[in-house]
Amino acid sequence: MTELTDGDSIGGFTYREIPTVEVDAVEARFLPLAEAVRRLNDAVIRSTADDTLLTDAVARIDELTRQLGEGAPPGPVGTCFNHEGRSWSWGNAAVGERNAVAPPLYLRFVDDTHVVGEADLGPAYEGPPGMVHGGVSALLLDHLMGVTASHRHTQTAFTGTLTMRYEATLPLGKVTLHAELVKQERRKIDVEATIVATDGTVAIRAHGVFITPRWAAELSEDR
Amino acid sequence: MTELTDGDSIGGFTYREIPTVEVDAVEARFLPLAEAVRRLNDAVIRSTADDTLLTDAVARIDELTRQLGEGAPPGPVGTCFNHEGRSWSWGNAAVGERNAVAPPLYLRFVDDTHVVGEADLGPAYEGPPGMVHGGVSALLLDHLMGVTASHRHTQTAFTGTLTMRYEATLPLGKVTLHAELVKQERRKIDVEATIVATDGTVAIRAHGVFITPRWAAELSEDR
Repeated sequence: MTELTDGDSIGGFTYREIPTVEVDAVEARFLPLAEAVRRLNDAVIRSTADDTLLTDAVARIDELTRQLGEGAPPGPVGTCFNHEGRSWSWGNAAVGERNAVAPPLYLRFVDDTHVVGEADLGPAYEGPPGMVHGGVSALLLDHLMGVTASHRHTQTAFTGTLTMRYEATLPLGKVTLHAELVKQERRKIDVEATIVATDGTVAIRAHGVFITPRWAAELSEDR
Repeated sequence: MTELTDGDSIGGFTYREIPTVEVDAVEARFLPLAEAVRRLNDAVIRSTADDTLLTDAVARIDELTRQLGEGAPPGPVGTCFNHEGRSWSWGNAAVGERNAVAPPLYLRFVDDTHVVGEADLGPAYEGPPGMVHGGVSALLLDHLMGVTASHRHTQTAFTGTLTMRYEATLPLGKVTLHAELVKQERRKIDVEATIVATDGTVAIRAHGVFITPRWAAELSEDR
């Protein structure tokens, strides 16, 4: 196998020669900033500010955007990984720790086939009044199930079909998600999942069929 | 029918005695602010700022959040409507014009059963490197299809099941969505939809079954 050097790309994933301890440190430094943007966004939704403050606010935000963007490469940040097996997707719409669009969703493998997810969904994730947007639930379920299909990151799997059954509305606040890899036949993987309210009510049941592309399956067999 | 007064709630939807022209004006005043927060979020994802700037940035954002939030009612903003039939959901996760979590998705009824959606998906909507997160597509499709099931807002419909078939990856950038109400049998409504890349490639085909609750169907028959 060819030696990887910093910036090399494999299927769009970028190799970075940064030790995990340093990646963790960068992430920890930026977390409070993303959290601050999430709080700011909540205020923008609810605000009753007058024109003077609004004009001033846009100017102040644009100046900060300019300062923070200085020297940063343009475009999406994608997924990076290092030689220790740590990977990070700071701009990911579901789990991106530095992306205020993402709640973010936190994931934890219980074992090779079970994954639990947790998110705290504030006013910015609203659909029906006071309730989580059904599409936000779909976003979180989609991400969780894709990760579950990876069998603890030992295989590459793409979403084939996703079916969601809406059983109850889901109030805004803390939610828990559970997913299980229930069946694997060669390159076809079945995953089942739920999103659950704080009081234990299952809001949505989802079933997903994931496919391992032929090239990826052959890579796995070669190992 | 009882006369509505400002602040009255019907099924969680809030009646506001504000003329449409004024609602439009408030929305127009806040749009640049939400756009500024979207740009700020993109910078936060990519930034290589040092500790001094990061600490300063959090303080400046928190101060602005405090100012913008002054006098604003806490909690989610829900959906409001006025006597002219104008409704607004500024905090909605898919279409909320004042919510940086939402792209936002813009919808337009072509006729009673066809709705077209448009969104510009920047780096904050990333899933696979350079591609739209499959769950973001699901979020937009879910919302579009729910609106389509309303038959130009003449009936209330809740999502029953949603099935998505992932056919191709979708590059970040401008996307178009199409939805059609294909069948209605009493309280059961079938909607089909697609999300399409700039080059015309269909990324996902979706099928949704929506249900009109008995109370809403009876209300419609009474009219």
